[in-house]
Amino acid sequence: MDALPMTIPAPGLPARVRIHEVGARDGLQNEKTTVPTEVKAEFVHRLADAGLTTIEATSFVHPKWVPQLADAETLFPRLQGLADVHLPVLVPNERGLDRALSLGADRIAVFASATESFAKANLNRTVAESLAMFEPVVTRAKEARAHVRGYLSMCFGDPWEGAVPVHQVVRVAKSLMDMGCDELSLGDTIGVATPGHVQALLSALNEEGVATNVIGVHFHDTYGQALSNTLAALQHGVTTVDASAGGLGGCPYAKSATGNLATEDLVWMLNGLGIETGVDLGRLSATSAWMAGHLGRPSPSRTVRALVPEAQSPQEQ
Amino acid sequence: MDALPMTIPAPGLPARVRIHEVGARDGLQNEKTTVPTEVKAEFVHRLADAGLTTIEATSFVHPKWVPQLADAETLFPRLQGLADVHLPVLVPNERGLDRALSLGADRIAVFASATESFAKANLNRTVAESLAMFEPVVTRAKEARAHVRGYLSMCFGDPWEGAVPVHQVVRVAKSLMDMGCDELSLGDTIGVATPGHVQALLSALNEEGVATNVIGVHFHDTYGQALSNTLAALQHGVTTVDASAGGLGGCPYAKSATGNLATEDLVWMLNGLGIETGVDLGRLSATSAWMAGHLGRPSPSRTVRALVPEAQSPQEQ
Repeated sequence: MDALPMTIPAPGLPARVRIHEVGARDGLQNEKTTVPTEVKAEFVHRLADAGLTTIEATSFVHPKWVPQLADAETLFPRLQGLADVHLPVLVPNERGLDRALSLGADRIAVFASATESFAKANLNRTVAESLAMFEPVVTRAKEARAHVRGYLSMCFGDPWEGAVPVHQVVRVAKSLMDMGCDELSLGDTIGVATPGHVQALLSALNEEGVATNVIGVHFHDTYGQALSNTLAALQHGVTTVDASAGGLGGCPYAKSATGNLATEDLVWMLNGLGIETGVDLGRLSATSAWMAGHLGRPSPSRTVRALVPEAQSPQEQ
Repeated sequence: MDALPMTIPAPGLPARVRIHEVGARDGLQNEKTTVPTEVKAEFVHRLADAGLTTIEATSFVHPKWVPQLADAETLFPRLQGLADVHLPVLVPNERGLDRALSLGADRIAVFASATESFAKANLNRTVAESLAMFEPVVTRAKEARAHVRGYLSMCFGDPWEGAVPVHQVVRVAKSLMDMGCDELSLGDTIGVATPGHVQALLSALNEEGVATNVIGVHFHDTYGQALSNTLAALQHGVTTVDASAGGLGGCPYAKSATGNLATEDLVWMLNGLGIETGVDLGRLSATSAWMAGHLGRPSPSRTVRALVPEAQSPQEQ
């Protein structure tokens, strides 16, 4: 029997995609079930073992805001044995940066908003105030020779403001790049984007001098759009795609339980298209099924459910 | 607040897509909970009220094989008041055709397999024998001036044979068109297709004289690929897309509970792309949430879950 999916490339797509795996950070941060530090460490090790090479490990945010990631200080040192794996961490401010750098982090990420409403809700600041807060973080991170990723959330829509104008996103994105970010991750935090919108935002960024090769895309699957939006981004030339093992992660501003683009669903498509990722889909799916067991509910990833039937009812494991 | 999704077209896509709604037939046929005839009738009426104009109503297959659709004779007459709505019905053989025509059906569909294994499992015939069985059905349907759709299943992969060669699919597709089918529906019955494979099959069919405007695509979401494959088909010029309200329908040959491409997830994408469908997404989602209540489990459609929160736990309704 010939393996599935059959590999048939489509024209105009990249030969290789770098997956920025966010399951351990974005995926877990809103989970109410506390995941023990040793389980998180095993999760990251298993993700690396499945071939992922960029694994966002945790966040050095104040524990009050994200209790699930309060163990960043004890988790991060446990991940240092991994060869050839980048382990970026989120830092909200200079204090978080200090904590991360003191533990040897060499890739950090800041988290900005494209809309005033979300900047206020998430950071209790205006967009301008939040950028002013990030500027010394980015400068000092660069001085420490760390690689800096700038997350930009609500790039396509916002629960308070509705549709977000492209020019507004471009303005904040430019500010992040101008302050020294090495790459940008365009977040569709509430999952409302569609392919034309994705390509229009990418084109507008290009026109303002932000090259496609510094842009990653970060889609949520709230309306089932994450993978088709990813395809549209790949067709534009994007080669960095954020995804979450098993589709972990929910947006607290949408009632749907669905979260990030599932890494497995992405890898299935890329395998079919003959686009290299270095990921072993079987190992990755087994890892996500194992984590679904720890969380006590089915994996939201359709590929995980199809490949690992017990992931559908993990409480029976 | 500006409505979501924002409408931004992408180049090279059709201005209008005809959705072939299969929820009442393909969606319900494997449901174990018997849906009363009056609920099915209301379902079809509500789908029409939401703006769907091609609604596959039922199947005139022997009740022993599909008990859920054993009420075709009593259901179909209840749907005759719908203006400007096409109501195709599936017929497996000449006896089914006689039953459908006697009730006034003017659109019928036959169901062929691209693989020998599925022809044997589903029809207990070789592919050649099944085509020989369909030939008089199609001929007589055309004599009765009915429109004939030829379903072709397992076009991308098969649970027994793995990947299915494109030339094998083209051969059976050509036979269906040569015997007089008006349109073809390419089924990814186990949901394994990826975008390059979709476009390669469409190109191969075009090369053999099967025009894109007689081809519909029918994707299942077993691996989360249905919508990105649909986007790839639209980019090739396809304008007929099969979908199932609320994502109803499971493939009995895959253990995953996921089924057909959800009509709502499709409409969200098409709305964002500015592609006309005539469908009211709010009404359609409410209809699917209502049907999820009858079936006693959450709608698999992410859009339905996001727009109608109670669709996540219908047993509480």
